[in-house]
Amino acid sequence: MTDQKATNVFWHHGDVEREHRQAILGQKGATIWFTGLSGSGKSTIAVALEQALYQQGRLSYRLDGDNIRLGINKGLGFSAEDREENIRRIGEVAKLFSDCGVIVLSSFISPYRADRDRVRGLHEADGLPFIEVYVQTSLATAEERDPKGLYKKARAGEIKNFTGIDDPYEEPTQPEIVLDTEALSLEQEVEKLLQALESKGILAA
Amino acid sequence: MTDQKATNVFWHHGDVEREHRQAILGQKGATIWFTGLSGSGKSTIAVALEQALYQQGRLSYRLDGDNIRLGINKGLGFSAEDREENIRRIGEVAKLFSDCGVIVLSSFISPYRADRDRVRGLHEADGLPFIEVYVQTSLATAEERDPKGLYKKARAGEIKNFTGIDDPYEEPTQPEIVLDTEALSLEQEVEKLLQALESKGILAA
Repeated sequence: MTDQKATNVFWHHGDVEREHRQAILGQKGATIWFTGLSGSGKSTIAVALEQALYQQGRLSYRLDGDNIRLGINKGLGFSAEDREENIRRIGEVAKLFSDCGVIVLSSFISPYRADRDRVRGLHEADGLPFIEVYVQTSLATAEERDPKGLYKKARAGEIKNFTGIDDPYEEPTQPEIVLDTEALSLEQEVEKLLQALESKGILAA
Repeated sequence: MTDQKATNVFWHHGDVEREHRQAILGQKGATIWFTGLSGSGKSTIAVALEQALYQQGRLSYRLDGDNIRLGINKGLGFSAEDREENIRRIGEVAKLFSDCGVIVLSSFISPYRADRDRVRGLHEADGLPFIEVYVQTSLATAEERDPKGLYKKARAGEIKNFTGIDDPYEEPTQPEIVLDTEALSLEQEVEKLLQALESKGILAA
């Protein structure tokens, strides 16, 4: 009986591929890569987009310091080598989620162009959409917001190699989307992102 | 107009949590951790289970050498330290997928009990189901199957520290499931796994 019952399970053969997962989800996987200064609003926008996608029944997943730093990137420090490896691993995790069919919302400062371009390359080589979103704010505004008090510490010399203070932020040269957070409301930003996902065909399988 | 439209998007506030993703998927996230000798049948069973889950409309994702070794674990070698880090990272990735609501099928030899127990701990500390599946085969049978010709190379001394030959395989002491691949058919194995997922409430949100 068990055999008979189980046999039906294998009526259709073949591996489960990316398109099968997309069909289950009714969407395509994609990585939305937010980059910008500390205090630019990356996480706030990612949280709002996640909420908007959820209300449409879309499966998204946020990668941020909370679930990455003490997890997959545990043990990495702030040397140039470790910073590069930090972004590399996040990129690899994002790629796996994209391949699974999930809309990944990655929000890390990711200040170096070469690191971001490598993550883009990983995705594009595998036919996965990579949407670089430059969350744009002047340093003055970011420093004024200073939600975690980090700029203050960096100015006081308590934090070294802080992006924008004593370490460079390399602006994206050809991001898919620029969000000027000094001109747009959070709702306008989310709307712009949803429209981009729609126009790229990600919200359909 | 844009503002008005976007405002509705935020009708419900609050972060998207694990249970919201589960509700979208109609299932719970979980990690099914296959462990066993090379040639025991881990990957074959994972592929068959993936297929069976797909036919039920379930979202699962396989982690195996193909998408891990040259990705997130690129650069890791075979030292004791690197082997431990290899399993640690796979465990962290599995945990993220579980948290996302996906049924993760992880198939790696993962020969050391301490490494597997750490991955279990990571999941259980975060309230995520961890199902250790011991894919049981005698060394003689695994070596006879030798699907990749690796045992032959290990016996010839061309591969060092090969599990079962010159490196130990530590059997699970309390796995959730044991699959005796010399006694069960592939269909019976899949059936047993599906029943376990069902009884643990993973196939409902």
